[in-house]
Amino acid sequence: MENFQYYTPTKVVFGKGTENETGQLAAEQGCRKVLVHYGSGSVVKSGLLDRIYKSLDEAGIPYVSLGGVVPNPRLSLVYEGIRLCQRENVDFILAVGGGSVIDSAKAIGYGVADHGDVWDFYEKKRAAEGCLPIGVVLTIAAAGSEMSDSSVITNENGWLKRGYSSNYSRPRFAVMNPELTVTLPKYQTASGCVDIMMHTMERYFNHCTNMEMTDGISEHLLRTVMKNAEILMTRPDDYDARAEIMWAGSLSHNGLTGCGTDGGDWASHQLEHELGGMFDVAHGAGLAAVWGSWARYVVDAAPARFAKFAVNVMGVTPGSTDMETARRGIEAMESFYRKLDMPVCLRDMDIEVSEEQMRELAEKCSHFGKRTIGCIKKLDKEDMYQIYRNARG
Amino acid sequence: MENFQYYTPTKVVFGKGTENETGQLAAEQGCRKVLVHYGSGSVVKSGLLDRIYKSLDEAGIPYVSLGGVVPNPRLSLVYEGIRLCQRENVDFILAVGGGSVIDSAKAIGYGVADHGDVWDFYEKKRAAEGCLPIGVVLTIAAAGSEMSDSSVITNENGWLKRGYSSNYSRPRFAVMNPELTVTLPKYQTASGCVDIMMHTMERYFNHCTNMEMTDGISEHLLRTVMKNAEILMTRPDDYDARAEIMWAGSLSHNGLTGCGTDGGDWASHQLEHELGGMFDVAHGAGLAAVWGSWARYVVDAAPARFAKFAVNVMGVTPGSTDMETARRGIEAMESFYRKLDMPVCLRDMDIEVSEEQMRELAEKCSHFGKRTIGCIKKLDKEDMYQIYRNARG
Repeated sequence: MENFQYYTPTKVVFGKGTENETGQLAAEQGCRKVLVHYGSGSVVKSGLLDRIYKSLDEAGIPYVSLGGVVPNPRLSLVYEGIRLCQRENVDFILAVGGGSVIDSAKAIGYGVADHGDVWDFYEKKRAAEGCLPIGVVLTIAAAGSEMSDSSVITNENGWLKRGYSSNYSRPRFAVMNPELTVTLPKYQTASGCVDIMMHTMERYFNHCTNMEMTDGISEHLLRTVMKNAEILMTRPDDYDARAEIMWAGSLSHNGLTGCGTDGGDWASHQLEHELGGMFDVAHGAGLAAVWGSWARYVVDAAPARFAKFAVNVMGVTPGSTDMETARRGIEAMESFYRKLDMPVCLRDMDIEVSEEQMRELAEKCSHFGKRTIGCIKKLDKEDMYQIYRNARG
Repeated sequence: MENFQYYTPTKVVFGKGTENETGQLAAEQGCRKVLVHYGSGSVVKSGLLDRIYKSLDEAGIPYVSLGGVVPNPRLSLVYEGIRLCQRENVDFILAVGGGSVIDSAKAIGYGVADHGDVWDFYEKKRAAEGCLPIGVVLTIAAAGSEMSDSSVITNENGWLKRGYSSNYSRPRFAVMNPELTVTLPKYQTASGCVDIMMHTMERYFNHCTNMEMTDGISEHLLRTVMKNAEILMTRPDDYDARAEIMWAGSLSHNGLTGCGTDGGDWASHQLEHELGGMFDVAHGAGLAAVWGSWARYVVDAAPARFAKFAVNVMGVTPGSTDMETARRGIEAMESFYRKLDMPVCLRDMDIEVSEEQMRELAEKCSHFGKRTIGCIKKLDKEDMYQIYRNARG
């Protein structure tokens, strides 16, 4: 087992009606003025935002609001949020929404605690030295940002999508009521499930062989998400299925499924980030669309690991070689994505990527030739191009 | 799934050589003076304490020391620690040891943050409103106190063993180097493994049926501990086996394996606490000695749950009824305990309990008839007496 750190300070308050505890949870944090940050009108229309405001009012906590976060959240709104917080002396950010809203809140938090340009952190020019404390009321099970240290922001200037991680941004509390996710469209539910699975799969695909506790948790998490995702395709209002997936979403990205590993292989996420920046696709769907291409490109570097995945997660019958079992596992994963109406190639998302665009994606993903990605196989710009190409479908 | 809270703020720093980071971790907490709290001479003889002092020196953190913690840690030493902390203006406690040392540190921490008698909390007369921050360097994988909210203290005045839990006492950091546990005697290693398993088993035995994520984690944790405990009986210096068990020990009692349940059935722990108070037995061994008697006494109230345990954890072949499968599971668990040279009844520990003593144990465990314990079956004083009686062997 490799040395590791595990740090998940977020207080999770999980279950029916828990959004009504938001004001009290914010008060426990000793905040004086809150920015309520959210996305589209759905939290307004559903009445959720009103319940949150009421809860803050009852706790005697003043607040200002900033909506308008979009999927693949934008740097321009982050700048606006920073100015608003500074002007209003906000000392706590409450993110009401899914991963995009939470990520935007984290970026605002970094910006308020800093004196320079917050984009510097996402460009890896400097390290953050603080972040306004953040609370979450989660409405989408997907990104795991409610317990994670990471955030991803898109800079409209060049449509660059970049992630930044630090423990400063781990939310202080996360209110998680699975009922709030019941009205999500099927496509978004499925896309969320893929995102959840990928956070564990990217940790799972590594070169370590000696972490039983972590491997078993990961395999069980993946099986649990798959089973309950299928239930939701026909019974979207099944509370227990929503709850299993919501809880799995947090555990999948809070660090637990990476403990004792070498960190895993995040190439699929990085390949998808550029797609998301260029085409604004749903993150989970984008991951599903590139994963098979990535897996086939690297499988020969770790056939035993892919074979373990195939048997323990996908439940396939072992073939005569690890490689054969591994390939069956990749096919089984793609079949599962199809069951959720998720894409397994770019064409499935109605994206026609030109030769020139594929070159551009590889340029951006390699930071213009300055980095490689992945650990199962280290991928350079040319490898990235090939994986995008094979993913066209 | 039931509503739940999950809160594990402890920063885990896990792996080889991590004890050398102790001073830096304490410095991150902003402490000005540390109480280094420990148990017997083993941490002195091994040189561990010197390495910790060196690490604190290098971080420029002054400290005072208090050793002498014994298994089933005593209230008198807690009082001494409180006075020492007050006299020396200590603002952080570093526990170097296993569960007894950490529990003693927690009790001292409560006492320093309070103006009355710390025993009030353990008597449930009052609720704590704070605790000095605590750090841990773990030397025994067993109690899970390094991430838990609980502590158990024995009052020599009447030999009452009482637990108290609050989030205030969850350690700020836990340094966990599995190498530090390699020299533990076989009996203590085995006893620790039983304790770890029981923290998850007591959560697992409940009346809920709809928590797949949690059940699967619990079942995998138990299988992992069993497999690696057997390895350690013949290869006590197997690093990976030590690491799996140490990590399982924290996950078993930090709340993870109880998420979404009704809280579980803690009767075995409570029955053992009185044994520990009266006979000073190793906690894990005491648990192994009473578990079978408890399980047979309550199994008819939840045969399906015991049958699930039998199949998924113990790997037994299902019988024709849940009850038959359940009984096979209980027998398999006892067989496993025997493989670790753990007792499955009181006589196995060379304890002859008189009729009068059994009545006294039941009196104390029922808080003199004022409480019932357990949830699979609610147990009153007479039930407790019967379980002690059946456990005599």
